[in-house]
Amino acid sequence: MPEIVRKIALDAMGSDHGPEAIVDGALAALDKTPHSILLVGKDDVLARLLRDKGYSLSRDSRVSIVPAPDVISMHASPSEAVRIKTSSIYVAAELARQKQADGLVSAGNTGATMAVTKLRWRSLPGVSRPGIAAVIPSQTQPCILVDVGANVDCKPRHLFHFAIMGAVYAKEILHLTQPRIGLLSIGEEQIKGNAQTAAAFNLFKDSDLNFVGNVEGQNILEGGADVIVCDGFVGNVVLKFGEALASHMLTHLKKRLKTSWIASLAALAIMPTLRRFKQEVDPDEFGGAPLLGVNGICIICHGATNPKAIMNAIRVAGDFSAHRLNQQIVEEIAAHAPAPSKAFQA
Amino acid sequence: MPEIVRKIALDAMGSDHGPEAIVDGALAALDKTPHSILLVGKDDVLARLLRDKGYSLSRDSRVSIVPAPDVISMHASPSEAVRIKTSSIYVAAELARQKQADGLVSAGNTGATMAVTKLRWRSLPGVSRPGIAAVIPSQTQPCILVDVGANVDCKPRHLFHFAIMGAVYAKEILHLTQPRIGLLSIGEEQIKGNAQTAAAFNLFKDSDLNFVGNVEGQNILEGGADVIVCDGFVGNVVLKFGEALASHMLTHLKKRLKTSWIASLAALAIMPTLRRFKQEVDPDEFGGAPLLGVNGICIICHGATNPKAIMNAIRVAGDFSAHRLNQQIVEEIAAHAPAPSKAFQA
Repeated sequence: MPEIVRKIALDAMGSDHGPEAIVDGALAALDKTPHSILLVGKDDVLARLLRDKGYSLSRDSRVSIVPAPDVISMHASPSEAVRIKTSSIYVAAELARQKQADGLVSAGNTGATMAVTKLRWRSLPGVSRPGIAAVIPSQTQPCILVDVGANVDCKPRHLFHFAIMGAVYAKEILHLTQPRIGLLSIGEEQIKGNAQTAAAFNLFKDSDLNFVGNVEGQNILEGGADVIVCDGFVGNVVLKFGEALASHMLTHLKKRLKTSWIASLAALAIMPTLRRFKQEVDPDEFGGAPLLGVNGICIICHGATNPKAIMNAIRVAGDFSAHRLNQQIVEEIAAHAPAPSKAFQA
Repeated sequence: MPEIVRKIALDAMGSDHGPEAIVDGALAALDKTPHSILLVGKDDVLARLLRDKGYSLSRDSRVSIVPAPDVISMHASPSEAVRIKTSSIYVAAELARQKQADGLVSAGNTGATMAVTKLRWRSLPGVSRPGIAAVIPSQTQPCILVDVGANVDCKPRHLFHFAIMGAVYAKEILHLTQPRIGLLSIGEEQIKGNAQTAAAFNLFKDSDLNFVGNVEGQNILEGGADVIVCDGFVGNVVLKFGEALASHMLTHLKKRLKTSWIASLAALAIMPTLRRFKQEVDPDEFGGAPLLGVNGICIICHGATNPKAIMNAIRVAGDFSAHRLNQQIVEEIAAHAPAPSKAFQA
């Protein structure tokens, strides 16, 4: 089957490390994906970067530049961001809204990206709250954590919609036929957890979701659930803490390995193993976190991103479009509304 | 200065692995601490275990047995637990309440331990909610995370009291002169976070706490705060997830090191380094998590505990008593009540 070609708008500015890593990611995507890329940002800066890297722009080239003179800084508030219509994120979002692009990838200010896409694209019909889904490695296969930062104060119905959207994502992108849904909590039993998760448990249990019950912190990585649902406050803390802890442990271990000459020699021998290990737990492999539930395709990357993560995000954005993920979300949300009574009607 | 001798009641039953690890921990504490231990549980089982390990009970021995015929299982609810007055945790808590013991250590059902101590001991004067404090390793020095599971739905004032109690603990047990307090949230700015943390931020800022602002998930291990405050839902998820991730990484790495003969040989050479590394990130070094704010000394250990953790918990319980930690908590809570107006009076 030939791969389906998509056009992805890439917010080239606003990352912590400037546009170079983004441009490198775009060029890497030319090799690894069939997609075209609209680089959105300061045109002189981007044109110079492409030239320096030996890439010639032409009418038919798969990379093109869409000028946007302004950049939303990492410290700008969402309300500031939505007012600056000439920023790279705003222009990139408009390209997608006007169907000049099939999806959007951004490594800029996450709050700004969410605010602009939610305002200009709106939510998909029936979705109560868009949520950010992150793929995390588990002991068996990758698992989806949702929401990791879009919503800090969630109602049980929001969590229910995260579950539905996460399941669609798991089916289409991770190719799982019947994703198992877990609810992040602090005990196995239904009554355990806070007011929000205890109420959500009932909503999940009474639905036809493939709900496997509560998942505790120590079980997140065990692979017992393919989609783990939580509010964006908890999800964000868990995701960022986990990434920092993994990286901290590797750094610390490397430092320790340099403290004796035997260990240093041995370390040389195991470096390939360490590198493979790092790759296996590397979140960049999964290419950013989609904002599920907005009426468009939006993949959010780390501010401190790298070319590989950008390339993978472009790939995922293309997959989202090719699999018509948003249409499936709309259908699934409609099929589960209203959820609690549905179980009794069946 | 001679060490101060304390008498610690040790709930010897109810751990996941049975009483043997607990008894081993008690015997280890005889070497490493000056304290006496009241082993509470099934007397025939405990007497046999002590005998098998070559320990002779006598009128003057530092270990003695206090019989309690019942055990609260890990699956019992707190309300069930408080009804069984002949359980090891209930009897141990009563020993402390009646001043026959200076503190309590338990590796049993955490919910039961909290319910029994809160019911029988009550809270310290002025404390709105007791909270569990866990010591976690950071890149510079250990840091205290509070609450890690006692309260799932917290008000800002509860978080404020966790901060005060955590600071007393950091001063007395970690020997920090002016502990820096952080609030776990999902952004640096005051407005970031959920409704609860945004309100707590104001309370902290307007007090004379040494408040250093929000701490994000990725910064928990960076050592920028000595006490990190959060509600017990988030804290429990973070603590358990972190422990599982660290252990998962070490296991995974060891497995990887066995995949080639060069790596296997090299692994042998770095085993001492790996062991030291594991020790540095080992939560058992810190000996359980105190339930701060109850009118007594209660140290909670993992259900899957080991002798080292029990021994360290006995040491910490003794330190708590010797440093008169609860009296200091009462004084500090009184000095900060009512907190918000205090800043303006100053």
